[in-house]
Amino acid sequence: MRGVVMYAPGDVRVVEREDPQIIDPTDAVIRITATCICGSDLWPYRGVEPVDHTLMGHEYVGIVEEIGADVATLKVGDFVVGSFCISDNTCPICRDGYQSRCVHGSFVAGAIGTQAEKARIPYADGTLVATPGQPDEDLIPSLLAASDVLGTGWFAAIAAAAGPGKTVAVVGDGAVGLMGVLAAKQLGAERIIAMSRHADRQTLAREFGATDIVETRGDDGIAAIKDLTDGLGAHSVIEAVGTRESMMQAIGSTRPGGHIGFVGVAHDVALPLDNVFFAEVHLLGGPAPVRRFLPELIDLIWNRKIDPGKVFDQVLPLDQAAEGYRSMDERKAIKTLLTL
Amino acid sequence: MRGVVMYAPGDVRVVEREDPQIIDPTDAVIRITATCICGSDLWPYRGVEPVDHTLMGHEYVGIVEEIGADVATLKVGDFVVGSFCISDNTCPICRDGYQSRCVHGSFVAGAIGTQAEKARIPYADGTLVATPGQPDEDLIPSLLAASDVLGTGWFAAIAAAAGPGKTVAVVGDGAVGLMGVLAAKQLGAERIIAMSRHADRQTLAREFGATDIVETRGDDGIAAIKDLTDGLGAHSVIEAVGTRESMMQAIGSTRPGGHIGFVGVAHDVALPLDNVFFAEVHLLGGPAPVRRFLPELIDLIWNRKIDPGKVFDQVLPLDQAAEGYRSMDERKAIKTLLTL
Repeated sequence: MRGVVMYAPGDVRVVEREDPQIIDPTDAVIRITATCICGSDLWPYRGVEPVDHTLMGHEYVGIVEEIGADVATLKVGDFVVGSFCISDNTCPICRDGYQSRCVHGSFVAGAIGTQAEKARIPYADGTLVATPGQPDEDLIPSLLAASDVLGTGWFAAIAAAAGPGKTVAVVGDGAVGLMGVLAAKQLGAERIIAMSRHADRQTLAREFGATDIVETRGDDGIAAIKDLTDGLGAHSVIEAVGTRESMMQAIGSTRPGGHIGFVGVAHDVALPLDNVFFAEVHLLGGPAPVRRFLPELIDLIWNRKIDPGKVFDQVLPLDQAAEGYRSMDERKAIKTLLTL
Repeated sequence: MRGVVMYAPGDVRVVEREDPQIIDPTDAVIRITATCICGSDLWPYRGVEPVDHTLMGHEYVGIVEEIGADVATLKVGDFVVGSFCISDNTCPICRDGYQSRCVHGSFVAGAIGTQAEKARIPYADGTLVATPGQPDEDLIPSLLAASDVLGTGWFAAIAAAAGPGKTVAVVGDGAVGLMGVLAAKQLGAERIIAMSRHADRQTLAREFGATDIVETRGDDGIAAIKDLTDGLGAHSVIEAVGTRESMMQAIGSTRPGGHIGFVGVAHDVALPLDNVFFAEVHLLGGPAPVRRFLPELIDLIWNRKIDPGKVFDQVLPLDQAAEGYRSMDERKAIKTLLTL
């Protein structure tokens, strides 16, 4: 089968890979019908994370081709959405809703690589969720978004305690930040402030539910959020970048007692604990337990209550994956969907 | 009146200070009947925080001597317990329960200094709580503990989501950590693991409700907590030290999805955000909003349901404050009560 391999930073190729096989009785092999490129794929692309002939891709939807003997909730032919984290969905940590830290968990990224025609998914029952039937073509992008970027924005909004009566600020206007806006809206937030300096992303943020846009950053950005919130700060802040600056932006923008959901992947960020201490805010972040939210997200998408697929502003065939990486790296595309 | 002033690190003196007067109509002047020395008073004593003729003390109980025209809930002669944070208890942040970050808030430490015969307490209605009557002498230490160290341990336990069915680990065996044990017990925790290497503190921890003691630290300490929790980590961790090591201990000891309440005051601690991210734990800390808990804590003490006063293992007259600081600095005393 064909699959994307990053040979070295900036060197993305579509090459022939071995077809996956069932190994464990809890495995499924799926034929991938759509996949995409994640903002986190740009870390190795830019040389910030190590990369060496790495199998790329961790977002995916597809059709079950084969199942192991112990797979109970899926059958061949099912259309499935999968999490970017493998989970058994039965261990104590999964039962608490943190499937991204399952005791049998692992990351799809690197080990499996779903920018490919097929994938072997371990713990299929605990990782994949079948849709109610074969989806209409126009639902595919939204279902694919649920695999990571929507699920991650959703987790951030939940971690930030977004809800009715709340003012939610979103730091970061990438795909995850935009999904955070959508999630906050869906969860009933009263006011949603998107921090963005890009006109196209501001437009999309407003489509997803943003009521206000703040273009400034740093101390000015914090002052702008306070101006919009009676000097107190937002109740809920979604952090979707992962740098020291974005975390300080989030901490400074949250009112005491408020909540920060942080989902930007941190790389060697030293957070000044003194500031966190005196800010007196709730913090929760990490790899999103997408599997927790998949049934609900699929339902919302299936019933056309949300349209997260709009976050994809570039569609390319898998063979042109390198072009997709380039576009996202140069910020010409927010998020690139790869067709098969 | 007499009051404790720290002239310089290590130089604690009881000197003559001016008697406090009502300034604002929301003030009360109280005659202090007991005060104490806090672990945080040792930071300037050791030269870690700046100090220069600083008015010391922020924990206090006493009798109302005079009230301003706008004070509504207190009358002259009331016995009161006060928070170490001044708060109006009416602003949006106070109403959310974060009185330690009141929009009109300030710290008693430094500005007021309650290691003294009297104190002017601004926003008296929002800072002080009257007891149901004049307390029996033996209740004084416990009521005094509520002013900070019990309220802080209580906040940490609440922030750590301690409760029925939970395993709670406590990092730090100082007075606040021990109060965290008491709070976790009172909140119904199933198992309470105190991390301590001191026999006397272990004994006190067990009296307050600890079911297990872990003497190791660092990676060994984390391994010991995991051994006691099916390899998963504690549901709830109370951090009551404030160093990088103690925070890493807390983060490593918490199961994914668990909660950390951190109340040790941080001094120039850089927290590796990457670890916090992948740990996937809830974090909440800061100066405790003691005022939120005072009515409940006074009730528990008044009805002799809890006995936090046991945390005081040294009692000295105010005039011997310097000796109290020395004892606590040398860890000969856990916590020193000063009588007037």
